[in-house]
Amino acid sequence: MIGKHRWKLGATAFAVLAGFGYFAACGGGGQGQGADVGQIAQDRGLSQEDIARAVKTYVPTGQMDEYLLMSSGGHSGQVMVFGVPSMRLLKVIGVFTPEPWQGYGLGAEETHAVLDQGRMLEKDIGWGDTHHPALSETEGDYDGEYLFINDKANPRIGVIDLRDFETKQIVTDPLLTSNHGAAFVTPNTEYVVEGSQYAGTLDGTHASLDDYEERYRGAVTFFKFDRDAGRIDVDRSFTIELPPYAQDLSDAGKGPSHGWAFINSFNTEMATGGIGKGNPPFEAGTAANDMDYLHVINWEKAAKVAENPENTRTVQGRTLIPIDVAIEQGLLYFIPEPKSPHGVDVTPDGSKLVISGKLDPHATVYSWEMIEEAIANEDFSGTDPYGVPIINFDSAVEGQLELGLGPLHTQFGPNGEAYTSLFIESAVAKWNYETLEMIEKLPVHYNVGHLAAAEGDTRSPDGNYLVSLNKWAIDRFQSVGPLHPQNFQLIDTSGESMQLLYDAAIGIGEPHYAQMIKADKLSPWNTYPEVGFDPGTMAVSEEAPRAGDERIERDGNTVHVYMTAVRSHFNPEHIEVNQGDEVVLHVTNVEQARDATHGFAINKYNVNVSLEPGETQTVRFTADRVGTFPFYCTEFCSALHLEMMGYLLVQPS
Amino acid sequence: MIGKHRWKLGATAFAVLAGFGYFAACGGGGQGQGADVGQIAQDRGLSQEDIARAVKTYVPTGQMDEYLLMSSGGHSGQVMVFGVPSMRLLKVIGVFTPEPWQGYGLGAEETHAVLDQGRMLEKDIGWGDTHHPALSETEGDYDGEYLFINDKANPRIGVIDLRDFETKQIVTDPLLTSNHGAAFVTPNTEYVVEGSQYAGTLDGTHASLDDYEERYRGAVTFFKFDRDAGRIDVDRSFTIELPPYAQDLSDAGKGPSHGWAFINSFNTEMATGGIGKGNPPFEAGTAANDMDYLHVINWEKAAKVAENPENTRTVQGRTLIPIDVAIEQGLLYFIPEPKSPHGVDVTPDGSKLVISGKLDPHATVYSWEMIEEAIANEDFSGTDPYGVPIINFDSAVEGQLELGLGPLHTQFGPNGEAYTSLFIESAVAKWNYETLEMIEKLPVHYNVGHLAAAEGDTRSPDGNYLVSLNKWAIDRFQSVGPLHPQNFQLIDTSGESMQLLYDAAIGIGEPHYAQMIKADKLSPWNTYPEVGFDPGTMAVSEEAPRAGDERIERDGNTVHVYMTAVRSHFNPEHIEVNQGDEVVLHVTNVEQARDATHGFAINKYNVNVSLEPGETQTVRFTADRVGTFPFYCTEFCSALHLEMMGYLLVQPS
Repeated sequence: MIGKHRWKLGATAFAVLAGFGYFAACGGGGQGQGADVGQIAQDRGLSQEDIARAVKTYVPTGQMDEYLLMSSGGHSGQVMVFGVPSMRLLKVIGVFTPEPWQGYGLGAEETHAVLDQGRMLEKDIGWGDTHHPALSETEGDYDGEYLFINDKANPRIGVIDLRDFETKQIVTDPLLTSNHGAAFVTPNTEYVVEGSQYAGTLDGTHASLDDYEERYRGAVTFFKFDRDAGRIDVDRSFTIELPPYAQDLSDAGKGPSHGWAFINSFNTEMATGGIGKGNPPFEAGTAANDMDYLHVINWEKAAKVAENPENTRTVQGRTLIPIDVAIEQGLLYFIPEPKSPHGVDVTPDGSKLVISGKLDPHATVYSWEMIEEAIANEDFSGTDPYGVPIINFDSAVEGQLELGLGPLHTQFGPNGEAYTSLFIESAVAKWNYETLEMIEKLPVHYNVGHLAAAEGDTRSPDGNYLVSLNKWAIDRFQSVGPLHPQNFQLIDTSGESMQLLYDAAIGIGEPHYAQMIKADKLSPWNTYPEVGFDPGTMAVSEEAPRAGDERIERDGNTVHVYMTAVRSHFNPEHIEVNQGDEVVLHVTNVEQARDATHGFAINKYNVNVSLEPGETQTVRFTADRVGTFPFYCTEFCSALHLEMMGYLLVQPS
Repeated sequence: MIGKHRWKLGATAFAVLAGFGYFAACGGGGQGQGADVGQIAQDRGLSQEDIARAVKTYVPTGQMDEYLLMSSGGHSGQVMVFGVPSMRLLKVIGVFTPEPWQGYGLGAEETHAVLDQGRMLEKDIGWGDTHHPALSETEGDYDGEYLFINDKANPRIGVIDLRDFETKQIVTDPLLTSNHGAAFVTPNTEYVVEGSQYAGTLDGTHASLDDYEERYRGAVTFFKFDRDAGRIDVDRSFTIELPPYAQDLSDAGKGPSHGWAFINSFNTEMATGGIGKGNPPFEAGTAANDMDYLHVINWEKAAKVAENPENTRTVQGRTLIPIDVAIEQGLLYFIPEPKSPHGVDVTPDGSKLVISGKLDPHATVYSWEMIEEAIANEDFSGTDPYGVPIINFDSAVEGQLELGLGPLHTQFGPNGEAYTSLFIESAVAKWNYETLEMIEKLPVHYNVGHLAAAEGDTRSPDGNYLVSLNKWAIDRFQSVGPLHPQNFQLIDTSGESMQLLYDAAIGIGEPHYAQMIKADKLSPWNTYPEVGFDPGTMAVSEEAPRAGDERIERDGNTVHVYMTAVRSHFNPEHIEVNQGDEVVLHVTNVEQARDATHGFAINKYNVNVSLEPGETQTVRFTADRVGTFPFYCTEFCSALHLEMMGYLLVQPS
């Protein structure tokens, strides 16, 4: 771990190092090398500070990164896993978008089964817009078992098992037309929270925008997570109806605020745009009011309320708590919050909430104790148009601190530090949420959205590192055409002052939020634990062929092929069928050596499967086209990898 | 550029640095910082050599990488662009696989038009297996204008324009069932070469493996590249029929060998496998012979031969030179080459060929002068079963050098250096191809396939850097489950000894070959040059709406929407249609600021388009489902990005 010995930010320019003799001037056996480091740095245009940055981020061969950064992939539809401090991309996990390297959605029934769960309007959806990953938690700390991710465009949640880093489940939310405050988990991953963003009709019908206030609604769904099954249990999940504001980010309470969830909002104006009709555009209409509403929701009580069918309606097969029930049962309160906020972030001890309004320069700190008291005392200024009680601002707010322009999102350090991104200012503000004192600001390049501090949204933030997820890179990297990468900047937060360490280009997708977990909290499998393992069930499959089981069986027009893969051949190597036959391939990688992955592809038949050591998969297709089609291993496995092939022979029927 | 001042590989361990006082012992103003660099390195477990490595690979904020590494993405179906020496992933380019971040294949007609060119057997193909990128060349040097990439699984070539780093064309090859020796270009990019790998029937019919020698064939296609159009011209392309060996890698001659192409091969045994039937598996059957055949092809003459229809047959719409014509016209010769070779690599001056046989420990160096003379003198040992003249091995080979186990692929340096990957040994051999002397070996982790040296396959290699594309990573990175990333190792070749600099995890796809080009050779566009630009035609589109043109026009059941996007709204914001209407959206990003990209997505309708500054795109869909569907900007563009939205309202008809 870095940080024990702080590197002091020196103003000393490299020029003072006396003709780069700084290192060379040292006596002793190391003289030659020292001189060269200085000379190399000079040649490469590196300052002395840069040398320290290089040393802080370099992970030499044979060593490992200290943290994993689990990042959304934006509209790539995937999740990206980076190592910290090296910022190397260790894996892109296929979630909502088919991913052929992983054989995800390109022939293997087991992966199609996951993607098919995510169909909407009876359509295949070939992408997603992932924004907010949520690591599973136990008592408010990351436990390294699961990762959840939302799809804003097609309101869904993906469930990734961190034993094999594969997507196991996609759950749709038919009541929503869009989500954003997702995925966030409650402190023991009892629920995965999914707040809507753009309002729609809960029943999925058409409604004119003239009827917006009456017919459109927001909502928040609490998806019940069954940890033993490793799956969301839709039947035990419930949704709470909300007004048609644009709900934004969410967070779950912990410690004293355990049992509560918080969602902020914009467009409490209920603007419906219409620039083509001479109306103000959404961007103006949604920014008219000085205050929007922080949503305060008692999920623990709501779960009990939802158990009684008298309290709920069934809409599109899901359990809905109507807004009047939510109000009546004390599940839902509002508190004014400054102008179009983005982030609502619960402090590590659960005692405060930090809200930053992107059109207001302040961080506003709410006290949970004050909120609880206000609810108990019914200290309300009135209700919103839907009857939701509005807690008095002054009865809930402990204080405000002016941070700068466009504050978006806050992460925490171990000693009262809050780090807030300033989008318009392109900076990170470090301040103290106990004393409401500004500590310092660090410029970033450019347009920072979310931040990710090491375990910075848990009960016990680590400090050490902060990543600034900058939405634009502009001129930071060699140009690769008009679509530029984004820029994750790694910041050292172990010292008294924040120190920018590294610019990491993100040339795949447009990440929003990320979470950073200590790598030693995870226990991934390096191979599947037994030969014949089906990642869909995370168990050995009875159908999985083993060495010696290889055969081809015909049953009418269905041809079952029981195949194994091992360096460097498939068995069988010839598959002879008639045009129109249905072919079902059961294929097992019978290896147990780490990294001995085999691919299985059939030329021109749009089939590619990835078989990690021990894994079995099933491929089903109709041999509708006559010809001779090679199949081969797509993952370079051995010196005779190119020879690992066979033929599918489809003869005219 | 690094390398002017060489960093000497010192054996001095960090331990000799006297309790890490090495830097601290320095006098002068820099003392504090110096001490801290040493201390940080100690804390992080870095040796003194590691500090030098860190300094050599670190690119500080505001500086740029020196080279771009254009890498295949393996069965991800894409191309990856990395910066060197930082090894940061600057962009993944969608080629054969839809890529939603780039809006590639998810609603925009212009991108569907490209992907649809790649349909095979009348099927959509959702992936590819990219192996070998080829930068366009002028006089044997990279010119930075275009990039070509093959798809091994579904024999195709993708054409990428390096002005915008987007795929402009996909060309199928119906005569092949598989390719591998692709893409390689001739020295002025006259042709893009595509050699087959697994043999098939050229006419696409079924043929029993019992008839392998008679009915199966290999082939090589020379795709004519029209540089002005920026497209392959299929009508001016031709294919040469080859025996049913497994053709492998290719290279084009240059200088004295200009006009010739070289392809090596394995499985001249014509083994057909069949382990399930008690036959030897492919891996054994294809490795029985001690020699395979280097294919020597006169493409310049072949192009003239192909112009005369009397010399060719038309097969599946393509022009084929039959093997007997190729022999008769002196287009095709064989030379024995040791055991299942992989790489055939022409030296920078075009005078020699380096062949490495993966089952033979030598590099075999062929002399072009000797080959030319042998052809002139008909110095043949006989013919292969198909009548192809076989040049005597001794009449073509200048010498051999034993390199080690599993030599695969060779790249070149500026002063006679050859770098050859040793797959089985997991090492890189550096040797001199003039003197046939071994210089040194460097171990790599693990299973190196191809190598990429800076401009290392051109007429003028740069030296400086070499990347070892290692197929396995095993234990080099934090585990992310049973599918491990690969490991690109960056090697400094500027000094007398190769120096391993950096381990770069490749967590997206399974790259094979890469080419490294000096970044200043490229002139990418940072925005599209004018508002209304269509990347499909690389020109301004007359249909592109501009500011002030926004409108909605109904024509029967077709609704044309002329829309603009600008921070932070779409215009129009309401699209009201009836169920069953065909909606055609013409949308232009009217911005000209660098990085001001907007996305356009329609929730649940599987539409996501990326609009770079100035770009126009067309989205066509049937509004088949009733409801209210938000559309919104998927690329975080401004503080009011979340407000950049509108509604598609589909009412029952």
